[in-house]
Amino acid sequence: MAGHVPVSESVDLARILAAQARLAGRARRTPLLSSPALDALAGRRVLVKAECLQHTGSFKFRGGWAALSALPEGMRGVVAASSGNHAQGVALAAARHGRAAVIVMPDDAPATKIANTRALGAELVLYDRATQDRDALCHEIAETRGFALIPPFDHPEVIAGQASVGLELAEQAGGVAAQVLVCCGGGGLSAGIALALEARAPQMQVRTVEPEGFDDTARALATGIVTPNTARTGLCDAILTPAPGRLTFPVLRRLAGPGLVVTDIEVLRAMALAFSRLKLVIEPGGAVALAAALFHPEKIAGESVIVIASGGNVDRAVFIRALNEEARHADC
Amino acid sequence: MAGHVPVSESVDLARILAAQARLAGRARRTPLLSSPALDALAGRRVLVKAECLQHTGSFKFRGGWAALSALPEGMRGVVAASSGNHAQGVALAAARHGRAAVIVMPDDAPATKIANTRALGAELVLYDRATQDRDALCHEIAETRGFALIPPFDHPEVIAGQASVGLELAEQAGGVAAQVLVCCGGGGLSAGIALALEARAPQMQVRTVEPEGFDDTARALATGIVTPNTARTGLCDAILTPAPGRLTFPVLRRLAGPGLVVTDIEVLRAMALAFSRLKLVIEPGGAVALAAALFHPEKIAGESVIVIASGGNVDRAVFIRALNEEARHADC
Repeated sequence: MAGHVPVSESVDLARILAAQARLAGRARRTPLLSSPALDALAGRRVLVKAECLQHTGSFKFRGGWAALSALPEGMRGVVAASSGNHAQGVALAAARHGRAAVIVMPDDAPATKIANTRALGAELVLYDRATQDRDALCHEIAETRGFALIPPFDHPEVIAGQASVGLELAEQAGGVAAQVLVCCGGGGLSAGIALALEARAPQMQVRTVEPEGFDDTARALATGIVTPNTARTGLCDAILTPAPGRLTFPVLRRLAGPGLVVTDIEVLRAMALAFSRLKLVIEPGGAVALAAALFHPEKIAGESVIVIASGGNVDRAVFIRALNEEARHADC
Repeated sequence: MAGHVPVSESVDLARILAAQARLAGRARRTPLLSSPALDALAGRRVLVKAECLQHTGSFKFRGGWAALSALPEGMRGVVAASSGNHAQGVALAAARHGRAAVIVMPDDAPATKIANTRALGAELVLYDRATQDRDALCHEIAETRGFALIPPFDHPEVIAGQASVGLELAEQAGGVAAQVLVCCGGGGLSAGIALALEARAPQMQVRTVEPEGFDDTARALATGIVTPNTARTGLCDAILTPAPGRLTFPVLRRLAGPGLVVTDIEVLRAMALAFSRLKLVIEPGGAVALAAALFHPEKIAGESVIVIASGGNVDRAVFIRALNEEARHADC
């Protein structure tokens, strides 16, 4: 991607609808679920978009598919840097396009993530966090092999793909005037949904949700100034991006309400309540939005709230920790 | 229900379609999910109907709603005997019809089940297993209060409601010639689906699946003779019915293939694989069909198999046991 692409040009409704058309029959139309018990806890109707049921267990398949399907015919492969959901989304989308996928991952990534990404047919390139520059390595691979780089959020087709979640919401939730709480890392999903809702359901407004210590987007929305997080590791591994994106932040600044922030304990409890009340497996980074709806209702407006459960790729040990955390409270 | 109602009269296609029409917009149309990893394990395409995402966490809401919505207008309430999924399905259906629900439950039922059923607005009558006759108590309540009794499976409207799962499958899985594995207790879900498929997708065939020690339906299908199980308690609490039903068994004998049987270890592993690969919470009784698909592929025919994940109401401790069981194996 050479030079700066103005946002209004990069992700307009035409591009979003084109991505949706390419995704039709490829991505799952995920259900919008609810539970009287969660409604009671939150003090309002809570509608949960179960994007953890998407192919590869997260919304990232949408952006991966949208980017892959927009490439010129001669492009034989793609490169992506990720040890998590983006890696799996791109790997499966590439395999289904008959294209090669090179996934660049730190050599200390969990064995299950390495195995899962390989099982989807991707070629893995492992690097040493201490001595190697990940981005330089990705560009080198892309250059040498003539592959396209698919960034996790700052890419117009990736954002347009994630926007399909917003188009589905506009259809599924009809005329509901609700805030839409979106788990936010780099902001690709939040910005995509915000753009889709602006066009199709302007009575809905996106609110980003982040974990404590990683509230770069909430701070930037409040002040207008982007200051990266200082913390590096935490429970919500899928959304620990240091700062909002160059393409995503201007969209969020224009369209999103104030950012919400939740604690790790609230995230674990939300995961346990999704287990008992929705029968869904949600990962920590995919549970921040539900945590905000359940435990910070006073910061949210409206009789209904929509929550994106953005992913479900969680290890057994963390899931058990969540179930045990909620057991310490009475109402699970 | 006075006297014997011949099956052909009691649940025909007209009754099934009428039940489906009353369920439209009330029951969730649950998604049909899949995962490349499960396909690889089973050696064929595995399509999972996620009925654990139904209201109250199991398919029982369908039969409950169908029965409630078929009652004459003057009927002010219903009685059901169940400590589990049938209780919750009937309680919610009654509440949404503005009718009273009396749920008869043993006084040693788990506190969470009592609390969940009460939270749905039902009135609970607890009885002593050692000294009281449950069925007599139900009839007495129905008689005294003028309420209708809603049995868990041997009831034409209940079977017609469960049949809506089969109608959805016929639409969702299109022309696939597949065996449909159904978790089987009294056979209401299995018989309902079998009748729907006979009418709408005759290339699909129901196979019942039961846990070891509770294979009353498999034995009866093999021999034609109903002999009740001797065991009473087990892991798969939702489907430990002692014998197939008077209305359900003749349907299964006519339409179902040989019954399948799985072990408790296989059930626990299937629950863990649904967690990691489908992001679904399935209870033991709802996981027997998936266990058969994954661990007994040689007993199943066809390039694809359809599995009903019939419920997700599982306690934390049992779920953790399942996750730990699978961790002892390599491929989770």
